[in-house]
Amino acid sequence: MVIVGAGFGGLQAAKALGKARNVRVTVVDRYNHHLFQPLLYQVATSVLNTADISAPIRSILHARNTEVLLAEAKSVDVHRKVLVVEGGEIPYDSLVVATGASHSYFKHPEWAQVAPGLKTLDDAVRIRERILTAFEAAEREPDPVRQRQWMTFVIIGAGPTGVELAGALSYMTRHGLRRDFRHIDTREARVILLEGLPRVLNAYPEELSEEAKLDLEELHVDVRTGAMVTEIDDEGVTVGDEHIATKTVLWGAGVAASPLVRSLGVPLDRAGRVRVTPLLTAPGLPDVYVIGDVAAVEQQGKPVPGIAPAAMQMGRHVAKTVLCRLAGKPPRAFRYHDKGSFAVIGRGFAVGVLYDKWRMKGLPAWLVWAGVHIAYLIGYRNRLFVMLNWGYTFITRGGRNMRLITSNVAKRMPVLAASRQVPGLPPPPVRPELPTASRPAPVH
Amino acid sequence: MVIVGAGFGGLQAAKALGKARNVRVTVVDRYNHHLFQPLLYQVATSVLNTADISAPIRSILHARNTEVLLAEAKSVDVHRKVLVVEGGEIPYDSLVVATGASHSYFKHPEWAQVAPGLKTLDDAVRIRERILTAFEAAEREPDPVRQRQWMTFVIIGAGPTGVELAGALSYMTRHGLRRDFRHIDTREARVILLEGLPRVLNAYPEELSEEAKLDLEELHVDVRTGAMVTEIDDEGVTVGDEHIATKTVLWGAGVAASPLVRSLGVPLDRAGRVRVTPLLTAPGLPDVYVIGDVAAVEQQGKPVPGIAPAAMQMGRHVAKTVLCRLAGKPPRAFRYHDKGSFAVIGRGFAVGVLYDKWRMKGLPAWLVWAGVHIAYLIGYRNRLFVMLNWGYTFITRGGRNMRLITSNVAKRMPVLAASRQVPGLPPPPVRPELPTASRPAPVH
Repeated sequence: MVIVGAGFGGLQAAKALGKARNVRVTVVDRYNHHLFQPLLYQVATSVLNTADISAPIRSILHARNTEVLLAEAKSVDVHRKVLVVEGGEIPYDSLVVATGASHSYFKHPEWAQVAPGLKTLDDAVRIRERILTAFEAAEREPDPVRQRQWMTFVIIGAGPTGVELAGALSYMTRHGLRRDFRHIDTREARVILLEGLPRVLNAYPEELSEEAKLDLEELHVDVRTGAMVTEIDDEGVTVGDEHIATKTVLWGAGVAASPLVRSLGVPLDRAGRVRVTPLLTAPGLPDVYVIGDVAAVEQQGKPVPGIAPAAMQMGRHVAKTVLCRLAGKPPRAFRYHDKGSFAVIGRGFAVGVLYDKWRMKGLPAWLVWAGVHIAYLIGYRNRLFVMLNWGYTFITRGGRNMRLITSNVAKRMPVLAASRQVPGLPPPPVRPELPTASRPAPVH
Repeated sequence: MVIVGAGFGGLQAAKALGKARNVRVTVVDRYNHHLFQPLLYQVATSVLNTADISAPIRSILHARNTEVLLAEAKSVDVHRKVLVVEGGEIPYDSLVVATGASHSYFKHPEWAQVAPGLKTLDDAVRIRERILTAFEAAEREPDPVRQRQWMTFVIIGAGPTGVELAGALSYMTRHGLRRDFRHIDTREARVILLEGLPRVLNAYPEELSEEAKLDLEELHVDVRTGAMVTEIDDEGVTVGDEHIATKTVLWGAGVAASPLVRSLGVPLDRAGRVRVTPLLTAPGLPDVYVIGDVAAVEQQGKPVPGIAPAAMQMGRHVAKTVLCRLAGKPPRAFRYHDKGSFAVIGRGFAVGVLYDKWRMKGLPAWLVWAGVHIAYLIGYRNRLFVMLNWGYTFITRGGRNMRLITSNVAKRMPVLAASRQVPGLPPPPVRPELPTASRPAPVH
């Protein structure tokens, strides 16, 4: 049994099979850690550490029958039954493809450079750095037009990631960062959330989309629905006739399944996902399971959403199917149990639907969201540290958070204002060594 | 007042002057955070998070008279009295140079590429990644000679950084990592500590050097003193006649003061430091203070060591001098109070000297070390989180730590062993979709 991808789906399959005596499992991933993607935006907005939302795959999968391999999967050769990885091949008897999805740039791959998406820990650290660097640059920038450009943030795509990122970023500009600067007022930063569809959180009931929009606006996010982006470059974003001048564009739109499934030679849907059988296998390939964001599953005419609980259910189901087959029992068709989904808007409020029935908003929704996320984190350590960091952030309103710029961005800062290059106002130096003002008086 | 560098010295000067009404302070640093360097090796060895040992400078220096500027200092023009930074100039009435030191590669600058030093958060994250990647590569490596090369780690320089890094790394190979791999036994990893001088921790009393060496050897560190490195490249290190095959060389030797002081035009010592006056000013430049690792201070014929407490004392002393001068009082000469220094060897043991009198070792020394380090961390948040992480690491013996490789190293892995490319031993597949072994049976 070879499992490619140790996300929510792959990890559940591996864990469930780790107990089986008659199966050997090899888990292949190009990273050494499992990542709790739903909280990645909190690394990007300086609330959590990278290690709080991740765990080394090897430390999770300690079962004797399980082996972990750090390798980049390149293709599947279904005829020879091998998984081709960078630098070698791994034969399989049965294969689980759980390689997930990335964002889709809608035929504009060149936008990926200027408008990074949020999928890996490195992405999150780089986005965090980009946001913080924008404020540092604004603080130095003498030209008010360019200063405003540095202080404008555009987020494209108002799915859960975009909504959560916009809310957290806007909160940060109004609270955590507020006292840090002298030449800018971070509360004047603009966070613009662009969505091509008519409403935010399109997968949610309309009433909750409306609520989310109002909540975001209360957090001073400029929400624009039905906004089609036509151009993005280093200087801004074009939406219809309007050009929004910005130095920071973040991407949270579209879904493009991992390209690995293309090599399976089976029909794919528009997002590049495999339309799987009820046993979650690829059509015509009974030994190749496809789960999580890379699988298109329909149930009662509705698509199963691309969220962590769905992937986990699929992972566990594959493990059951494999064990049934080994035991000679007939396997059962996959059935998705919709436990719900939630999106956080801001400090202590969220929207969501529980068990496909109860619509929730505000603090109750946030409490459910928080409880579920804590519960699904891997390990007690991460649970404890996430709770502590949330508690700290909540109490201090984003006080001294993980606002780190670790790479040397100082070389790329705007030229210093000429006005700052003249020593400030009196008192003039009495003796040369007297310490007096060397720059304009602080604004605040 | 312009302060360049927000390390231990610069920060103390800025904090002390933050209370003064008649001074305006500008703090210039090329990073946005203050870094608690003494614990940096714990980020490199997966014990602590980057944010646990750092804090944004802006969030520390909130005083109304203080301004923080992210900028790379390039030189000082003492005639025009300006600090030249990338993209501008900052005039000063008085200047504090507190830009610290980096490692010296002893006329071999090309070694910096293959043998990185540990000075910034980015260095620590990259070294962590390098160490973990070496084990991933060893796990994949079919050739036993190259496998052994991947599992050999050489640390050059047995000052506190080298000793602490060697101890922590060796501990990690024997505990935290032990159960993670199938094709290698991480306990067979070799950690070699090379020192050119006749003993480790040369600044400590001889008795403690001896103790440290014994403790390191108990942790299976191969300690070699009087070892002169003549060559380092991608494949190993040459020491005299011996070539040590290794893929991971870490550098902790030598001290080279920040090159900024060269532009002051004053005489420097061999390490590039300014021999300062008793008021900690550069000779002939009464308005330029030089403190911390960039200053060479002698007291009763002994050099003041390049450690955090010394830099902090100098920072506070400069603030006092400035305030004395402003008040028209005569400033007093700097006097270093030796409170002691400690180096950790392993889990619960250290060596050190307290108040230049009491020599300590073992657990008592570790407890003093831990208490002092917690106390000197910036802010309650970092103190709490460092304590929690230490507690966790202590109890679990390095259990599931921050062992993250965040960049995509999978592309650079060794070619997979041919033996792994053949499906493993029985049971052979009964039906094609049956999950059976696809790789050799686990070794453990």
